[in-house]
Amino acid sequence: MEVGDGNLNLVFIVTGERGRVVVKQALPYVRAAGESWPLSLNRAYFEHHALTRLGSRAPGRLPQVYLFDPLQALQIIEYLQPHVVLRRQLIAGEFLPRLAPELGVYLARALFRGSDLCMPTAQLKADVALFLGNTELTGITEDLVFTDPFCECVRNRQTPGLDAEAVAARRDSELKIAALELKTRFCTVRQTLLHGDLHTGSVMACEADTRIIDAEFATYGPMGFDVGSLLGNLWLAWFAQVAHRVTVEDCASYRRWILQVVAEVWGAFAAEFSRLWRTERNGILGGKELFELQHDPGGAELVLQSTLAGIWEDTLGYAGIEMHRRIFGFAHVADFEDIADDALRAACARKALAAGRQLAVYRRSLTTVAQANDLVAGHGMAR
Amino acid sequence: MEVGDGNLNLVFIVTGERGRVVVKQALPYVRAAGESWPLSLNRAYFEHHALTRLGSRAPGRLPQVYLFDPLQALQIIEYLQPHVVLRRQLIAGEFLPRLAPELGVYLARALFRGSDLCMPTAQLKADVALFLGNTELTGITEDLVFTDPFCECVRNRQTPGLDAEAVAARRDSELKIAALELKTRFCTVRQTLLHGDLHTGSVMACEADTRIIDAEFATYGPMGFDVGSLLGNLWLAWFAQVAHRVTVEDCASYRRWILQVVAEVWGAFAAEFSRLWRTERNGILGGKELFELQHDPGGAELVLQSTLAGIWEDTLGYAGIEMHRRIFGFAHVADFEDIADDALRAACARKALAAGRQLAVYRRSLTTVAQANDLVAGHGMAR
Repeated sequence: MEVGDGNLNLVFIVTGERGRVVVKQALPYVRAAGESWPLSLNRAYFEHHALTRLGSRAPGRLPQVYLFDPLQALQIIEYLQPHVVLRRQLIAGEFLPRLAPELGVYLARALFRGSDLCMPTAQLKADVALFLGNTELTGITEDLVFTDPFCECVRNRQTPGLDAEAVAARRDSELKIAALELKTRFCTVRQTLLHGDLHTGSVMACEADTRIIDAEFATYGPMGFDVGSLLGNLWLAWFAQVAHRVTVEDCASYRRWILQVVAEVWGAFAAEFSRLWRTERNGILGGKELFELQHDPGGAELVLQSTLAGIWEDTLGYAGIEMHRRIFGFAHVADFEDIADDALRAACARKALAAGRQLAVYRRSLTTVAQANDLVAGHGMAR
Repeated sequence: MEVGDGNLNLVFIVTGERGRVVVKQALPYVRAAGESWPLSLNRAYFEHHALTRLGSRAPGRLPQVYLFDPLQALQIIEYLQPHVVLRRQLIAGEFLPRLAPELGVYLARALFRGSDLCMPTAQLKADVALFLGNTELTGITEDLVFTDPFCECVRNRQTPGLDAEAVAARRDSELKIAALELKTRFCTVRQTLLHGDLHTGSVMACEADTRIIDAEFATYGPMGFDVGSLLGNLWLAWFAQVAHRVTVEDCASYRRWILQVVAEVWGAFAAEFSRLWRTERNGILGGKELFELQHDPGGAELVLQSTLAGIWEDTLGYAGIEMHRRIFGFAHVADFEDIADDALRAACARKALAAGRQLAVYRRSLTTVAQANDLVAGHGMAR
């Protein structure tokens, strides 16, 4: 049974006597666009390398990979049950108690352990070189996330009712400067191995467990890109709630929960990142020789705090850009697309754009997750 | 005739009937340390690739390469005449009228044209991957520039009379935080192909011409690293002048000339970088689609100014670190080593350290080259 709902690949669930597996196969084109947009099959090779690396850095958070067949661009992967794609659950209004801490810890482990804070540097440099080969999918991110949404481009799909907003964004120097600065960091700052497409459709969750899937966009880049993609999509879900919840009370309480998830993801990330900083900081950028080994533990703590502040600034920037590209760009999100009423969809998206602009442009001014959540909440509208 | 005076290689001048050439051969160890410090021969391969790339980006500023023999790790290179190593000329007190503009324009062309502001991105990514193979020499920079000088390390060679300063630097959290932040940018920000060791010993000059030599430390990194290495060495030369000039007047006038060179290098760099920004900004980080193509030329100019400001901040940081590592680390400079009087050498170096610390720690506060030159001049002492 073909069950894929992503933009790129075929996904089959195969049932046999001994159980079920997922078979994921790359097509020589973009599934969502058809054969007119060719795409090379070697993305399966990079996804395989990414899944195995991220899985070993954050044990338990990725599906097991049983087999990779490069010739068929095919992977056989653990079938996750009773997990459901997170984006679907956010539209349905489900509460997931383990989601926030498991995502925060995942992010800290995957991002910290893939960086020169931790890895042997020769291995890291060889890995950076390997993933520099993933030019085609990285190029999609470069274009579709950072450039197309702020230009007239045939790949864009415009949400009805937002023509004025699209024109305004394309005239907005501050927003475009933020987009270009964040693109520049995405392309030049090779800080760690990113998942590269960590939206709420790349998370499968159930009450007891949270998993990360779909790593073909993996590339070395700034840590805040993955964190920001995730938080941006959570905030998009927040803006869409007025259309998906029936009562004012349900909407308010589920929105509170989403903002709590955002705060807890960042909180768990910062806590686990700090723990790893103090216990696994053995890479060439760890600086232990400068600080701990010279009786200067305070210096190391100061660098930890400025490192976290830098990741947070990037996080807000990438979240704000993500909130634009999902409304103006090629790849929209079901949170909005599932809203049947054009006017209501546009109204929700308009609020998301206003918040996203402020997150991206004023990313240096909003220094805590509470401030960012308050900014988002300030753009809310009653059901 | 073997004429090499660098730390790594053998350099011969070969004279034949039709002229002279330079033959540069890598040894399987560090020349300055002997066989106890082995070093692989493939550095000649990376140098060859760097020389040809930098030479084509900044025509006329590098020696011609006639032949590269990978088996013998040997290159045959243009013999430069009547050029003399710049460091020697600064010690001798020579004035070089073309030096500053030619260095500034070299830096702008080499750094801009090797970046995603200009290059086709697939070619750039393949090149980043290629130079990631130069791990051994990049590792030397990582250790010897950013870490060893701020630690007790057997590779360090201490200038007599500066024990207290070395101890103070190793307890100086702010300075060490700056060193680690700048190392982090050096290792993660793959902005352009750097020369990687652009001190005044890597420049050969005469009245009519300026050339850049010795590119085996080439690596992708932040643009400010090359600019900062160069300015840091010019400022070191400034601090050494009290020992090399005979009269107070000569010292003052030559020092004025050095600071003028610093100002003109940065001025020529910024002017040429701006010209290339307006005429050759066709790479994926150029952002023309966002600005010029949407009738927003002002946006592009704002990004140019913030890009130059970022390069300047890095420049000051790397200059300040360079001024430390040349005094506390493994590789010292003849500007100081040629001072026979221990007390005078230490006095000059002490002033250089104080200025270097302020340049690195307060790199975000000093926003113009005039401010940086004034800071350096404020540390001067009468002959």
